[in-house]
Amino acid sequence: MTNTRTETDSIGPIEVPEDAYWGAQTQRSVENFPFPRHERMPIRLIHALATVKQAAARVNGIHGLDPEIAGAIAKAAEEVRSGAFDTQFPLTIWQTGSGTQTNMNVNEVIAGIANESLTGTRGGKDPVHPNDHVNRGQSSNDSFPTAMHVAAARALEVELFPALEQLHDALAEKAQDWKAIVKIGRTHLQDATPLTLGQEFSGYTAQLVAARDRIEALLPRLYQLAQGGTAVGTGLNAPENFGEHIAREIAKITGLNFTSAPNKFAEIAAHDTMVELSGALNTLAVSLTKIANDIRLLGSGPRSGLGELSLPANEPGSSIMPGKVNPTQCEMLTMVAAQMIGNHQAVTVGGIQGHLELNVFKPMIGANLLRTIEIASIGMSSFATRCVDGLEVNETRIAELVDNSLMLVTALAPVIGYDKAAKIAKYAHENGLSLRAAALALGLVDEKTYDAHVKPQDMTS
Amino acid sequence: MTNTRTETDSIGPIEVPEDAYWGAQTQRSVENFPFPRHERMPIRLIHALATVKQAAARVNGIHGLDPEIAGAIAKAAEEVRSGAFDTQFPLTIWQTGSGTQTNMNVNEVIAGIANESLTGTRGGKDPVHPNDHVNRGQSSNDSFPTAMHVAAARALEVELFPALEQLHDALAEKAQDWKAIVKIGRTHLQDATPLTLGQEFSGYTAQLVAARDRIEALLPRLYQLAQGGTAVGTGLNAPENFGEHIAREIAKITGLNFTSAPNKFAEIAAHDTMVELSGALNTLAVSLTKIANDIRLLGSGPRSGLGELSLPANEPGSSIMPGKVNPTQCEMLTMVAAQMIGNHQAVTVGGIQGHLELNVFKPMIGANLLRTIEIASIGMSSFATRCVDGLEVNETRIAELVDNSLMLVTALAPVIGYDKAAKIAKYAHENGLSLRAAALALGLVDEKTYDAHVKPQDMTS
Amino acid sequence: MTNTRTETDSIGPIEVPEDAYWGAQTQRSVENFPFPRHERMPIRLIHALATVKQAAARVNGIHGLDPEIAGAIAKAAEEVRSGAFDTQFPLTIWQTGSGTQTNMNVNEVIAGIANESLTGTRGGKDPVHPNDHVNRGQSSNDSFPTAMHVAAARALEVELFPALEQLHDALAEKAQDWKAIVKIGRTHLQDATPLTLGQEFSGYTAQLVAARDRIEALLPRLYQLAQGGTAVGTGLNAPENFGEHIAREIAKITGLNFTSAPNKFAEIAAHDTMVELSGALNTLAVSLTKIANDIRLLGSGPRSGLGELSLPANEPGSSIMPGKVNPTQCEMLTMVAAQMIGNHQAVTVGGIQGHLELNVFKPMIGANLLRTIEIASIGMSSFATRCVDGLEVNETRIAELVDNSLMLVTALAPVIGYDKAAKIAKYAHENGLSLRAAALALGLVDEKTYDAHVKPQDMTS
Amino acid sequence: MTNTRTETDSIGPIEVPEDAYWGAQTQRSVENFPFPRHERMPIRLIHALATVKQAAARVNGIHGLDPEIAGAIAKAAEEVRSGAFDTQFPLTIWQTGSGTQTNMNVNEVIAGIANESLTGTRGGKDPVHPNDHVNRGQSSNDSFPTAMHVAAARALEVELFPALEQLHDALAEKAQDWKAIVKIGRTHLQDATPLTLGQEFSGYTAQLVAARDRIEALLPRLYQLAQGGTAVGTGLNAPENFGEHIAREIAKITGLNFTSAPNKFAEIAAHDTMVELSGALNTLAVSLTKIANDIRLLGSGPRSGLGELSLPANEPGSSIMPGKVNPTQCEMLTMVAAQMIGNHQAVTVGGIQGHLELNVFKPMIGANLLRTIEIASIGMSSFATRCVDGLEVNETRIAELVDNSLMLVTALAPVIGYDKAAKIAKYAHENGLSLRAAALALGLVDEKTYDAHVKPQDMTS
Repeated sequence: MTNTRTETDSIGPIEVPEDAYWGAQTQRSVENFPFPRHERMPIRLIHALATVKQAAARVNGIHGLDPEIAGAIAKAAEEVRSGAFDTQFPLTIWQTGSGTQTNMNVNEVIAGIANESLTGTRGGKDPVHPNDHVNRGQSSNDSFPTAMHVAAARALEVELFPALEQLHDALAEKAQDWKAIVKIGRTHLQDATPLTLGQEFSGYTAQLVAARDRIEALLPRLYQLAQGGTAVGTGLNAPENFGEHIAREIAKITGLNFTSAPNKFAEIAAHDTMVELSGALNTLAVSLTKIANDIRLLGSGPRSGLGELSLPANEPGSSIMPGKVNPTQCEMLTMVAAQMIGNHQAVTVGGIQGHLELNVFKPMIGANLLRTIEIASIGMSSFATRCVDGLEVNETRIAELVDNSLMLVTALAPVIGYDKAAKIAKYAHENGLSLRAAALALGLVDEKTYDAHVKPQDMTS
Repeated sequence: MTNTRTETDSIGPIEVPEDAYWGAQTQRSVENFPFPRHERMPIRLIHALATVKQAAARVNGIHGLDPEIAGAIAKAAEEVRSGAFDTQFPLTIWQTGSGTQTNMNVNEVIAGIANESLTGTRGGKDPVHPNDHVNRGQSSNDSFPTAMHVAAARALEVELFPALEQLHDALAEKAQDWKAIVKIGRTHLQDATPLTLGQEFSGYTAQLVAARDRIEALLPRLYQLAQGGTAVGTGLNAPENFGEHIAREIAKITGLNFTSAPNKFAEIAAHDTMVELSGALNTLAVSLTKIANDIRLLGSGPRSGLGELSLPANEPGSSIMPGKVNPTQCEMLTMVAAQMIGNHQAVTVGGIQGHLELNVFKPMIGANLLRTIEIASIGMSSFATRCVDGLEVNETRIAELVDNSLMLVTALAPVIGYDKAAKIAKYAHENGLSLRAAALALGLVDEKTYDAHVKPQDMTS
Repeated sequence: MTNTRTETDSIGPIEVPEDAYWGAQTQRSVENFPFPRHERMPIRLIHALATVKQAAARVNGIHGLDPEIAGAIAKAAEEVRSGAFDTQFPLTIWQTGSGTQTNMNVNEVIAGIANESLTGTRGGKDPVHPNDHVNRGQSSNDSFPTAMHVAAARALEVELFPALEQLHDALAEKAQDWKAIVKIGRTHLQDATPLTLGQEFSGYTAQLVAARDRIEALLPRLYQLAQGGTAVGTGLNAPENFGEHIAREIAKITGLNFTSAPNKFAEIAAHDTMVELSGALNTLAVSLTKIANDIRLLGSGPRSGLGELSLPANEPGSSIMPGKVNPTQCEMLTMVAAQMIGNHQAVTVGGIQGHLELNVFKPMIGANLLRTIEIASIGMSSFATRCVDGLEVNETRIAELVDNSLMLVTALAPVIGYDKAAKIAKYAHENGLSLRAAALALGLVDEKTYDAHVKPQDMTS
Repeated sequence: MTNTRTETDSIGPIEVPEDAYWGAQTQRSVENFPFPRHERMPIRLIHALATVKQAAARVNGIHGLDPEIAGAIAKAAEEVRSGAFDTQFPLTIWQTGSGTQTNMNVNEVIAGIANESLTGTRGGKDPVHPNDHVNRGQSSNDSFPTAMHVAAARALEVELFPALEQLHDALAEKAQDWKAIVKIGRTHLQDATPLTLGQEFSGYTAQLVAARDRIEALLPRLYQLAQGGTAVGTGLNAPENFGEHIAREIAKITGLNFTSAPNKFAEIAAHDTMVELSGALNTLAVSLTKIANDIRLLGSGPRSGLGELSLPANEPGSSIMPGKVNPTQCEMLTMVAAQMIGNHQAVTVGGIQGHLELNVFKPMIGANLLRTIEIASIGMSSFATRCVDGLEVNETRIAELVDNSLMLVTALAPVIGYDKAAKIAKYAHENGLSLRAAALALGLVDEKTYDAHVKPQDMTS
């Protein structure tokens, strides 16, 4: 049995573990929502809420909050924000839809730390009160969505963008290295006209450039914070311009350009920007699936597939087939992408269900976005390091396939017309001939013309 | 200018095209929801509603409805049900969420036909009134979901099951024809141990058998009808046992085992069975994608792909590349499957949003399910006829790939152990040797043992 | 029996209806994909392809195409683009995944018109050949995605933006009209602190402003065209800078800022921008659901609901309950939104499945986006006209609810502390008292202080 | 620094923490997929794999595996299965798509425990080899999907069905208690004809009965196991009838009716049954959303909402609004449902992407299904205990609303006709009259007839 102390809230008294910094409302939520530990609210959301509390304490300090209390809150919040109290946030995603209980968990822990620093006694509401002081000028309804924006923006900056850049650069290096390797193109998974392997990889880099562009295009909306709206968007009980001041403080603390949302009602009652961000990440998932799937296809074999690339052999591929090597990083990344697409759906379903002044799917929406960003970031970085960087090209195989191709006939179409060119390809196919042999056999083009036009290298630019 | 006549409803009078059979409420909806013609309510839903009206007239006839009126309604409903008045249903999916306006469209047209047959004057409410007579004992709230179940069940019976069977049989025939063709297996898109082409195709047939099983497993719920619940499920204004009687009549008319739902409140307020059916069709979409995608992969080439199968050349494949043949039926079917998955999402989103006594996403839910069934059915049938039936196997290519495979080494693992077997495969791969050559070169197995165990044919059973 | 003429393609001869402008490939597709008429490729995609052909003819005219042929093509394309030949495009969405057959349908019809104008004989390939002339310098692989971008961009411009603006303006007018009406706020669907009805509606307008912003933020990517990449992105068989020239011509014709995509490989092999646009429209669907659902809630009643607003009575609401009026426009709009969300899923699923040089889910992706834009546009416009414009406010009811509210106690929290304020609310609730009576009864605040702080009007700003 | 020992696999030697039971392949995967701890493979999948190993050891023991080794494996597997070694499974969901590394993790840990018990030395491959002995007759490709089915079936049995039953019973008790409370019905969120509160709740119980039925209907497919198919479905390296024997052993261990799948190719290459189960759970999510949302609506207020029910006040509802009580269990459950819908999408996207002999989205599919079952089960049970059980009915409010209702007029429609009844309702509404007053004022019905027909109680059955 753990020793306990008594804490109280408007429902009444409740026993809390003696060494916990949290108070009555946190404890009540622990008991009311008995989900397992792996369903905990993402720690990034907690850190973001602590950022809000730190900024609020600074602003409240210049609006009449006792300086000692304001200082103790700011210091405690800074410690929470930096990760020193991560064990003090036992609540899970599955709680009230406004995130009130996590907001109170943060309020209570910060009050608990501040009270301990001021009085030597952990927890409690005196001299620092979780609602009246830590939460001053705030409501869960504006603090939690503010934390969702702050956490997501930080995760993009610190996790996603670097990983995206790493993957982009890894692909771009290959595109550069392989810019002169002419290979067969494939459309409809059928042989088509040639391109270079570098051109093929340049498509992937272009997709990732656009991925970044589309996320950056939404940052102005993501940087807009609900804080200052309090309970329903009117700003009741918050000092004038509280939203603007706190956005400025949060910007200072995080180094990101946060601003106060022009309309707080919309930010509390709906999470359209979260749905938008989710849509941009859904698009990234689509791009990553394409890229990883292509590399898997190009590396299929080693003897019965396309076999144009060799993927790094990071681990034994099979528990039964000795010597097998599999595209495990591709598989990891496409599974991550599938999860991202699923998470997007959850966010969308949460987004549609707001009622009047409040959307109550906040924790679920925030948790899905943060998970998506986390697994996408680790996934892209790992894929870059353990797959793309180690890709090797099988030039002999590639050359062989180009030489055998029938679709080089396309280069003849402008010279002899589509219909005659089609006859050559068909004839070669049906008789197992080379394109050149078929062309000459049918007498539809002379040797010199054929050789002048059917040059795979020239067909790539 | 079209000539018009005046019809009235509780809102007031309104002009209706003179030759139309419909009345005021239909006309009002035409004007209130200005969507284009291609967004019309699926005609199968109209026919199913007419089935309801026909059955209701019969039951009402034995509960006091004037026999002449009951007879005229039943006759008119039968004509509508059989398709003779398909132009009289101009309303689109996008209307009231209970489908009231389409229910009234059917009530009005049937009254209009009946009145014309009895009086010589088209339309109107006398002697046959759309609400008091055609809709007697019914509400849109129970009639429309009844029609959703009837239309879906009929579409499964008449469209989906035959198409599923056709595709199954086409694949089963190939599985039988190719049961002795040993080919390389591919897991992770990498070379694996062999199987027969017939075994590969037997997997597809097993998927389709299960597809049918899972749809049949839900039919008992699909056959349960809401009719008899009237406005909110209590059955107000319907004669006693109206639900049971009408279910029996509908079963007679359609030849399907419809019953009266044991709880009408659930059937009106939610459409869980529609969501369930949508989930089963989503699973079918998943299966179809796998099958069509595999056939596309196996047919990739002709010279730079896997090339194990040749697909029928149904049309020129490219507007620029002469002689190109593409797996267009696979593409059609996988696009259809993607649409089915999207439709499932729409149905799910509609399903969650019911409020209290009524779900008001009925037309959207019904339309998506009927579209899914229709395109899946045509898609499967076309794919069977124009792709599967015409598949040809490239035996030379298949034999070549088996002979070169390294994964035949798996057959040695039980004899010499996984670790030594892995060494052989690795050595062969790195030195471009055949597996046999590598095995003997490393001295890890003798010739006789090798030949006794590494027999592709034996490895398939 | 229709009279026919014989047309040919690389597969061979085929009979085509005598009066059709299309040729062999179209006819083959009609027969190979037997889907019903309501599954036709959206006409906007056809018009956009005609725009491409018109622009291509102009550019080809300065790159050696016979001026008479170029002129005839441009003229025929212009006619197709303007809708004069809409009956000549019988192909459905469900065909080859590159849209080749629709591209050929457009090529053939334009050639057919041009040939008729030059020779008096409809159809055929002489003097204007569908591939060699109309499709010159193009492939379906770049023309079809170009048309997808052009059609979507035009639909946004001509349909979506005006409808969005209309709905925004209708809501903004109400927000302005109602800016002084103080009402009870509701969070978690529970009574909360007050706001004005105008503030509530301002949230909706803010959502729609952001909806437009997020679509505009992606236009630079949507304006990038694949044209010039031809079959695989290399631009084989297209004159130099064909992509840039044709983008400029298309910009001229449409009045939109189209540019040539910097990387053609990505534009042909993937449709990330389409998925992105779909994500933005998914977000719009989320916003529209929130708005329509709120208005439905506020208008619930007339006697047993929230009853704050009265919605226009556009039609009789029930086939069984006389005098019932329902929020049919809200229902239409939320059903449209559910469909948009489903369509987004279909687009996403199509987006992930590209292989190497070509994504073959093009028609499905394009059709879903155009359908989404069309139904969203009509839906928003109708909802603005037939619901928002006619909303009426029930001021008596609203005032009553504010007066009774317990959550006005929030204004006391900064004065007497959260815990004491909570006691007052609880006491009032349990004893059925007014807040004021409870506050005074408990002696936790004096009359003067109470009256000075608890002023609903002041609590809204 | 942790002390390490050296382990080896076919890639080479690698350092493993000295106290770990796992071997080289696990360690390699730890390093190759650096995802955080909260992304670990669900422990239920590990336990299910251990069940497979235990059963396999028994079967292998009668097919020539050394009895000492077989016994040591079975004993170690039993310990793993029962949870004693849960810390030994550090791998995450994001790995190879066949789950090979988790299969090897289980093989290695079981070998490591068995070796320790036989030799005193932890880990290693001697005398018990992870591949040759623990994995004997198996491949990850059949063991992992077998474990997916076993884990899902167990989770349904142990978690989901009891929770579903608990929620059903809680709702059924209320339906029974409240069977005589007549209340106003609401369709389209507008006042409709009356029903009893018990009838309303009976709809919820009917939804949950169907939820169980639809899951039970798929159990025959879920009970079919892939085991015995080994690498590609042919059963290579497995003794004859291995699949049947092992299914029997697993059935014995788990008490569930597992059987050997009739077609192993389909079970390895696709996961249609997982997608089907996901669809059934998606339907459950839809039902739960409806139920929780209705209870939230009925409990809205306390003074400005519908206010028919009072929900238990489990915790303070607001950090800013004192005394506020929110429907937090409803919010938790609807958030859980949104996640379930998202997870279903992830499973669907994984399901469509199998290639030839193997679907490589196994861990992602399995993890999503198990998470869905876990959160749904806890969510339903918590909702039953902390919300439904504590619901209280506000009879005064309910009676008031029935008395004021206009839709009671429906009972007059069969007597005076729909059109006249509509006039009465309209007149009452416009003049703020009671229905009775309006009816008499308009002279459309006499007092006696009115009173004989308009009896709310009678209108509910």
